[in-house]
Amino acid sequence: MATMEPDKQPSTPERSPALLAQEAILARPVTPERRMADAIRALAIDGVEAAKSGHPGMPMGMADAATVLFTRFLKHDAADPRWPDRDRFVLSAGHGSMLIYAWLHLSGHAGMGVEELRRFRQLHSPAAGHPEVGEHPGIETTTGPLGQGISTAVGMAMAERHLAARFGKSLVDHRTWVIASDGDLQEGISHEAASLAGHFGLGKLTVLWDDNHISIDGDTAISVSEDTLARFRAYGWAVRRVDGHDHEAIAAALNAATKSRKPTLIACRTIIGFSAPKKAGTAGSHGAPLGPEEAAAAKAALGWEAGPFEVPDDIRESWEAAGKRGGGTRRSWLKRLAKHPQRAEFERAMAGKLPERWDAAIAEWKAKAVAEKPKIATRIASQKALEALVPAVPELIGGSADLTGSNNTNVKGVPALSAENFGGRFVHWGIREHGMAAAMNGMALHGGIIPYSGTFLVFSDYMRPSIRLAALMRQRVVHVLTHDSIGLGEDGPTHQPVEHLAALRVIPNLHVFRPADVIETAEAWELAVKRADGPSVLALSRQNLPAVRTDAGENRTARGGYVLSEASGERRATLIATGSEVEIALAAQAALEEAGIPVAVVSLPCWELFALQDPTYHDAVLGSALRVGIEAALEFGWSRWLGPDGIFIGMQGFGASAPASDLYKHFGITADAVVAAVKRRVN
Amino acid sequence: MATMEPDKQPSTPERSPALLAQEAILARPVTPERRMADAIRALAIDGVEAAKSGHPGMPMGMADAATVLFTRFLKHDAADPRWPDRDRFVLSAGHGSMLIYAWLHLSGHAGMGVEELRRFRQLHSPAAGHPEVGEHPGIETTTGPLGQGISTAVGMAMAERHLAARFGKSLVDHRTWVIASDGDLQEGISHEAASLAGHFGLGKLTVLWDDNHISIDGDTAISVSEDTLARFRAYGWAVRRVDGHDHEAIAAALNAATKSRKPTLIACRTIIGFSAPKKAGTAGSHGAPLGPEEAAAAKAALGWEAGPFEVPDDIRESWEAAGKRGGGTRRSWLKRLAKHPQRAEFERAMAGKLPERWDAAIAEWKAKAVAEKPKIATRIASQKALEALVPAVPELIGGSADLTGSNNTNVKGVPALSAENFGGRFVHWGIREHGMAAAMNGMALHGGIIPYSGTFLVFSDYMRPSIRLAALMRQRVVHVLTHDSIGLGEDGPTHQPVEHLAALRVIPNLHVFRPADVIETAEAWELAVKRADGPSVLALSRQNLPAVRTDAGENRTARGGYVLSEASGERRATLIATGSEVEIALAAQAALEEAGIPVAVVSLPCWELFALQDPTYHDAVLGSALRVGIEAALEFGWSRWLGPDGIFIGMQGFGASAPASDLYKHFGITADAVVAAVKRRVN
Repeated sequence: MATMEPDKQPSTPERSPALLAQEAILARPVTPERRMADAIRALAIDGVEAAKSGHPGMPMGMADAATVLFTRFLKHDAADPRWPDRDRFVLSAGHGSMLIYAWLHLSGHAGMGVEELRRFRQLHSPAAGHPEVGEHPGIETTTGPLGQGISTAVGMAMAERHLAARFGKSLVDHRTWVIASDGDLQEGISHEAASLAGHFGLGKLTVLWDDNHISIDGDTAISVSEDTLARFRAYGWAVRRVDGHDHEAIAAALNAATKSRKPTLIACRTIIGFSAPKKAGTAGSHGAPLGPEEAAAAKAALGWEAGPFEVPDDIRESWEAAGKRGGGTRRSWLKRLAKHPQRAEFERAMAGKLPERWDAAIAEWKAKAVAEKPKIATRIASQKALEALVPAVPELIGGSADLTGSNNTNVKGVPALSAENFGGRFVHWGIREHGMAAAMNGMALHGGIIPYSGTFLVFSDYMRPSIRLAALMRQRVVHVLTHDSIGLGEDGPTHQPVEHLAALRVIPNLHVFRPADVIETAEAWELAVKRADGPSVLALSRQNLPAVRTDAGENRTARGGYVLSEASGERRATLIATGSEVEIALAAQAALEEAGIPVAVVSLPCWELFALQDPTYHDAVLGSALRVGIEAALEFGWSRWLGPDGIFIGMQGFGASAPASDLYKHFGITADAVVAAVKRRVN
Repeated sequence: MATMEPDKQPSTPERSPALLAQEAILARPVTPERRMADAIRALAIDGVEAAKSGHPGMPMGMADAATVLFTRFLKHDAADPRWPDRDRFVLSAGHGSMLIYAWLHLSGHAGMGVEELRRFRQLHSPAAGHPEVGEHPGIETTTGPLGQGISTAVGMAMAERHLAARFGKSLVDHRTWVIASDGDLQEGISHEAASLAGHFGLGKLTVLWDDNHISIDGDTAISVSEDTLARFRAYGWAVRRVDGHDHEAIAAALNAATKSRKPTLIACRTIIGFSAPKKAGTAGSHGAPLGPEEAAAAKAALGWEAGPFEVPDDIRESWEAAGKRGGGTRRSWLKRLAKHPQRAEFERAMAGKLPERWDAAIAEWKAKAVAEKPKIATRIASQKALEALVPAVPELIGGSADLTGSNNTNVKGVPALSAENFGGRFVHWGIREHGMAAAMNGMALHGGIIPYSGTFLVFSDYMRPSIRLAALMRQRVVHVLTHDSIGLGEDGPTHQPVEHLAALRVIPNLHVFRPADVIETAEAWELAVKRADGPSVLALSRQNLPAVRTDAGENRTARGGYVLSEASGERRATLIATGSEVEIALAAQAALEEAGIPVAVVSLPCWELFALQDPTYHDAVLGSALRVGIEAALEFGWSRWLGPDGIFIGMQGFGASAPASDLYKHFGITADAVVAAVKRRVN
């Protein structure tokens, strides 16, 4: 993916075709708008030189296209960069972060002054190496891992369409613009995202592809031969090709895009590192400072005479005017909002606040479930929870990667979200887990939507880069991951997660719930929906599980772990289990108590929440007697709870293909095995 | 992805367009070859009925195309299914596993008798839920997670081209055939793989796409609108569309494919669950038994009168003849091999044996390095190791996902593998990590190649499904993953792995090396290359690291962990570190010894190998004093080595964008922090 090494780039022969083309472009008359673009170039050069690291090539190459977009098309007001009906701008090619910082700076945004630019890539600077959500309000999404930005943008564009259907065009009517690199389009996720965008006919999505023919290893021809425009046409996109240094051609293409009913890909043929007299058109300008000499020569070639980080007054004024060009539109919009009958609801949804009494129906369901004690799979329990939540929380938009009936993520009567009905609330994502997860990030970032997915737990591997970004960006997205162990049975080791719970638990800021029964599942859903500052995973069983909880008043899952069933006397052991193995722990407890060995059972549905409790609580719950962990997964990570003398009953490696009950026996994850292990130690 | 739920499928109106089409097809004259296809259908029905789970729809739909392929095109001999110059057949749509089992059974392969079919999806049956490498020699690759098969096949086809360049067409001249589903082509990885296949012009790769318009959620139209043939044409493929139940049309298309210089995609328009009078053409036939009534009716519609798992003699004879059709070709090939000047070398390479004295040059390098003690990044140390290994081991084929200069995976003078020079030994994979990892699996499975990759450690997330399969299939592939911590600096948290070491360590059968210096890096390479039964990861630093090893005789990394520097007296603490943090541990040791506190330093470059040592060794190395873990990553998993009273110095969450030295200070991963932590506890 896109990043740097200062050395090792091939040297360029003087006056390569790219340099000849550059000369011709530089010979064109210099318009005021070209000078605005040059301001981006100069700041990108300066930022990277000051940091002694970074990627000047992309901002220098795409400055013209970006300038046309920002000054003539983008609906934006620097006075309120979070205005809900703004256009979204996504720098998918996140390594070119100086482009976005230069723009935020030039167009007069607070919080991106010259001091911030000077501290590009330094600790605590909002001008981080790659654009990071939360560092500056003008940054819509965190980019850098290639393919994520363009795919996240698809979710933003879907969110816009859905909210327009919900609240009407007078409140929601904006576009999504993306600058993408070669790498973005080579990544597999771009296929999933672009195919979805074509399928949904996201006409308000426009991607400017920095078609510079260069990636880190050199000319893209060494690894790519595809006809990318034909490929996107096959997805149902409108496609165009322009000279990426010709402002009027760019404007014409962008204008056409605003009229298209299809998403649009504009291949902007550019010269990477434009203006650098030696490094332009080479990988040498991609990911390393130009060096003082080449930097000076690049500025000279542009006729740029201002000092480092300086911008001539006339250019700064033009940029500041551009920064305000959405101001009037925003003020009209605010007037419309003030009078709008759905104003309160719109503001609530966009603020990420849950409706009043959002949890009344689920409380009712929990009360019913605790009385009826249904023996159902937790994936079914999840569906029951959704039946209470989906009507109460209109922001919840569900989906599945072609496993709707298996994930149980849809609720009766909820229509599909489609090109014909963007008001629908269930997305058939197709077999596109990664695209789904990235688009969900985009929905959450857009605001007004709490997206939840469905696929098998084992396929969390396909979504992992996007789950990680959700955690890093602290976005409320919920992944419903069913078939969470060998308990899925016959599909075998390719479908049986054994390492995935651990692999998800290790992602910072992600809450991983593995509920044991119908009540814990409802509690997990409550916590996931309430959690405004990060993503959650629900790992759910395929197989039926007995109701183990006899209370539903307090949300006990909120503490992550708790004593589900205390020992009859002084504990000789504590059986600690999650999800489907809590049933086994309880059966083992019964047998051990029968044999005169008092043991407690602890349910540990969410390690991350349990870790947040104080040590006294940990000690009280886990006890000082022998600790036995039971989970149909690998032991990795369990020693934290079990200590050096604990016992773990679980998987040792990959699963196998057989009916679930045979597998539990085969791998020795049974109450008998727990009983035997405890007896060996306590007798 | 593709799997089952028995319930929840929409009921089909009688005589849907699919059923009408089916009637027309069934009305065609029944040829002997159609009856051979019907044998596959009948066995698929029987297997799924007996198992009470599985996927009958795909084998029933694709039986015709598969039969034409197997009987008229596939170069294969059931007498030796591992014959090196056989054609490779990949069932990318692995859920339709009964198709491959039925074929192996019918064509007379040992080890797939009727008893095995009767035990489809039962414990210890080679007829597992999805095809698993190692269960039967006729299974070329493990499939089930969609998109993997087709992408693995691209690697097989690349391997064929490379080995043909190395050994000549008289030894290596075979084709790769794939049956793929809608899901395979929706997955992002299919884009990466197909784009690579087009780029490399893999004319001997043919994909039969089961274009049945049905996925689990129903008609594919609910989630897909793309023109898939146009998309593949854009990748540089030849594309065709045929009636997937018309044997002569299929044969014509396959014949054309054998003449194409481009890879070929053949859209086989089929009816899923073909012959089932009610469920054909519906998702209801995809992933659940038809049920006795529908099963009987399907057989009746075919005119299939044999009992369950029975095959009429004439059909069995035809299939057995087909199973031997490659016999003559194989015998001629064996004769050519016997006389071939490169016979020994070919046999050695295909057997996965390393050349004599393969490690002489690296031993020499280690001796030199231990004397010179270069302070270099371990990624550079890896390049140095490769400079010794690549010339000595001709099977090593390297690559990078567009980060060649950063991963240091190429060696001077090694040419690129390209469509113009398949004999090259370095692959510019483009920005396609997932496709790279899957294709590498295909190369290893093909035999004759030991592939190694390059990308950043953080992007292991993009490759994870394929890394998992390599581990499950026990294939020798090596992933060189550089920039392995916050030590990469300014690129920031999107590029800084904090959870990836743990996330990789938890994959069963994967060896994760994080070497501390030039010697450990060479040792890790030796172990990775020698390891014939599974994949390895080398996590390597961007930043320079001092040489910490003073010996190079014994490969100490082979035990996973060892005492690098013993305490001067009775240990008060043991500092346990990996990779770049070993330097910190040594500095802390020096300061603590200076302060009169004897501490040892343990280097723990490979947890998996260390875990294999006996407890006595563990105790001796880790000691009974205070244990301190030091790793610029999250603590998850460390308690196993540290115990409940240990101290961990590392990351608490995501990283940040800043120069590396600032980050180490900011996050408190310093010798001073270690010293202070130890002093607090031992004083």
